[in-house]
Amino acid sequence: MQAVDTLILGGTLLCLDEAMTQIEDGALAIQGDSILAIGTAADLRARFTSPNVIDGRDCLIMPGLINGHTHAAMTCFRGLADDLPLMDWLNDYMFPAEARNVDPELAYWGSLLACVEMIKSGTTSFCDMYIFEEETARAAKEAGMRCLLGEVLYDFPSPSYPTPAAGLALTRQLLERYADDPLIRIAVEPHALYTCSEPLLIQARDLAREFSAPLALHLLENQAEKAQIQAKVGQGAVPYLQRLGCLDERLIAFHCVAFEDEDIHRFADHGCKVVYNPESNMKLASGFAPVARMRAAGIPVGLGTDGCASNNDLDLFQEMDTAAKLEKVRHLDPTLLPAPTVVAMATREGARVLGLEGVTGCLCPGLKADLILIDLKRPHLTPMYHPYSHLVYAVTGADVKTVFINGRLVMRDRQLLTLNEGEIMERVNRIAGRISRSLIAPAQ
Amino acid sequence: MQAVDTLILGGTLLCLDEAMTQIEDGALAIQGDSILAIGTAADLRARFTSPNVIDGRDCLIMPGLINGHTHAAMTCFRGLADDLPLMDWLNDYMFPAEARNVDPELAYWGSLLACVEMIKSGTTSFCDMYIFEEETARAAKEAGMRCLLGEVLYDFPSPSYPTPAAGLALTRQLLERYADDPLIRIAVEPHALYTCSEPLLIQARDLAREFSAPLALHLLENQAEKAQIQAKVGQGAVPYLQRLGCLDERLIAFHCVAFEDEDIHRFADHGCKVVYNPESNMKLASGFAPVARMRAAGIPVGLGTDGCASNNDLDLFQEMDTAAKLEKVRHLDPTLLPAPTVVAMATREGARVLGLEGVTGCLCPGLKADLILIDLKRPHLTPMYHPYSHLVYAVTGADVKTVFINGRLVMRDRQLLTLNEGEIMERVNRIAGRISRSLIAPAQ
Repeated sequence: MQAVDTLILGGTLLCLDEAMTQIEDGALAIQGDSILAIGTAADLRARFTSPNVIDGRDCLIMPGLINGHTHAAMTCFRGLADDLPLMDWLNDYMFPAEARNVDPELAYWGSLLACVEMIKSGTTSFCDMYIFEEETARAAKEAGMRCLLGEVLYDFPSPSYPTPAAGLALTRQLLERYADDPLIRIAVEPHALYTCSEPLLIQARDLAREFSAPLALHLLENQAEKAQIQAKVGQGAVPYLQRLGCLDERLIAFHCVAFEDEDIHRFADHGCKVVYNPESNMKLASGFAPVARMRAAGIPVGLGTDGCASNNDLDLFQEMDTAAKLEKVRHLDPTLLPAPTVVAMATREGARVLGLEGVTGCLCPGLKADLILIDLKRPHLTPMYHPYSHLVYAVTGADVKTVFINGRLVMRDRQLLTLNEGEIMERVNRIAGRISRSLIAPAQ
Repeated sequence: MQAVDTLILGGTLLCLDEAMTQIEDGALAIQGDSILAIGTAADLRARFTSPNVIDGRDCLIMPGLINGHTHAAMTCFRGLADDLPLMDWLNDYMFPAEARNVDPELAYWGSLLACVEMIKSGTTSFCDMYIFEEETARAAKEAGMRCLLGEVLYDFPSPSYPTPAAGLALTRQLLERYADDPLIRIAVEPHALYTCSEPLLIQARDLAREFSAPLALHLLENQAEKAQIQAKVGQGAVPYLQRLGCLDERLIAFHCVAFEDEDIHRFADHGCKVVYNPESNMKLASGFAPVARMRAAGIPVGLGTDGCASNNDLDLFQEMDTAAKLEKVRHLDPTLLPAPTVVAMATREGARVLGLEGVTGCLCPGLKADLILIDLKRPHLTPMYHPYSHLVYAVTGADVKTVFINGRLVMRDRQLLTLNEGEIMERVNRIAGRISRSLIAPAQ
């Protein structure tokens, strides 16, 4: 009998490995930050003892979800303005609200609130792009969350830097500071082709190459952006990225709504990755990304919520439900994006997109212990014929009971163990009061 | 000082009347089954006393939601089969599962489970169509829910009757038995034009006229049905209903995905009603109903979840979110179906669709006290700038704290007071075991 740090006994284990292994009355042993063994409860009970035994009966046990695209600190702007034409929303609300309010305090407390919301809805890893990302890294560390993040890079000054060169310097600092961090990884993140000049994109590319870091950007979020890029650079966005030498397996593109077949093939040929954000694309009326076609071409596609100003929550279970349903109605084909595929996009495939393959995304011995327990003893989850169907079409974040990240218990029976939820909500409410007042007051 | 049965003090009151009255630090007095008064907490505290004071602080207080179309007992088939072509889903799963398993026991326990799920997610009224509806009525009575229901009528035998005439007789019995019921109303419910002959439709119409009852049916759920009806009756479905004398203010049509402008105008001209079911329409790949155009033409449009085999939950908050987002992306216009409109569809407009105008759907003195409290002290509902935005884009059913129906407290702090949740889940799990075995066993 081997002593291990934690033993989860009972429940249905969904491993989300390539074979989609499912173990009834399953069990999982955690040692340090990693999964040591999986098997049946009878098997692991015979091999391991532990001072920390978690009862997994009446639960689904699966890898923690991976939110491939968000702007964590934007929880502070949740629902500030909705249902508006895109340019009114940006110019009358989001840009002035951000310009007048985003500071390290907002970035820190907003990111903490995002971590609370993500852990409570079963997300264990996220990919972030925003301003003052040092604060988001600090928040994620306190929460005990895994993330890939980068300071957003623009041609113009941001609240956190005066020049594009200073933005790149900030990114370099992050890359150096978090080089050996067990949870935080850094990406180089130019905002988008319409906000970044060619020199900035080339410098970003070089910085990503130097550190073997991912290069992540918003890309072709809608048809208007497509026309704008064509007018700006005289060619299509994806051929332009190829000309700049940005198309490789470290490129992560968010949205890709306006992708044509030719763009899909270029991405597939170069090993580029995509994050699909259906709820944001719907709410902002951006359009339908060709997600089934991208996957069929071999592009790894993860799922993201986008930020809270355009969703307005961070619940990946609801995003899975929407992803599965939207593709069906869009093409009038109910077989597209079946439930197991969508769950894989939010776990194993999401890990691959973020360069976390072999780290997280599956329940396999040797991988980090990022996993969640979902409570099945709920009216809306009764009865259960197929677990993947439930995960996509019936479970919401509120059904997540217990969460481990990197071997650490961060939520037990819906009690967060790493963060003070009440204090965080109070601080964000105070910041929201300041935001409201700033929009009433005349611009400075 | 007047003594009242219940006094709710504090919180934001959203009345959902035509003026969309919103009262901060609001209050509401309940006497018997009705709303006696609304106002500020200071106002009502000065006028009323009560032995039952509910603390509404940090809550939204609003009318209970109205699920305009469901098949309650189908909770027993939740997630039995998904992601399949429509005809495989029907012929290989749903039809044999229903033919071999639907009996009064399934109808009763399945309906009870639906009532549990609906109350826990803030729905206080629902419109139901299924087999053995007497059992659904019994379940709704025990739950204390308001509903409009009718036995589904087909040309062929159903598990509950051998002939169409017997189905009509069953409906007549229901109409007589529930004539004076405070919570249960009966509709005449031919299933659809492709499953009902002209004589059956005419008899259904006459029965509805005789009792001044609503006539409710599935209509033009997809393009294939449209072609099928055209081939069967030699004209379009809506002109056909008009020829049969069915187009009037008592007609309630579910889905209406394949409506053309001409159908919309006929419906609007005759005061007919529509229930929109976006999640079911997406999951079954039925198509996009022209919901914004129907509303613009003046048709009252409610929201429904459809049954649990095609959704797979009964959470109207998620349905609101999907309704608002789907119309935006469908027409690439983010201003369509703004949040307050969608909340009105799920409350005031839903009541109008079901003929419950003046009974429920708003918080107005004199109306029945059907209302819910939503707990705002949650990370994913922090901060709050606009309550309607939260209701549509961030709240889920799990945020509903307390529910009153017809003046009766049916859920308090998420504890159901009318039903035994554990027993109901256990009974439905047992029925689901029988359903699974019936699909493995050869057909009889």
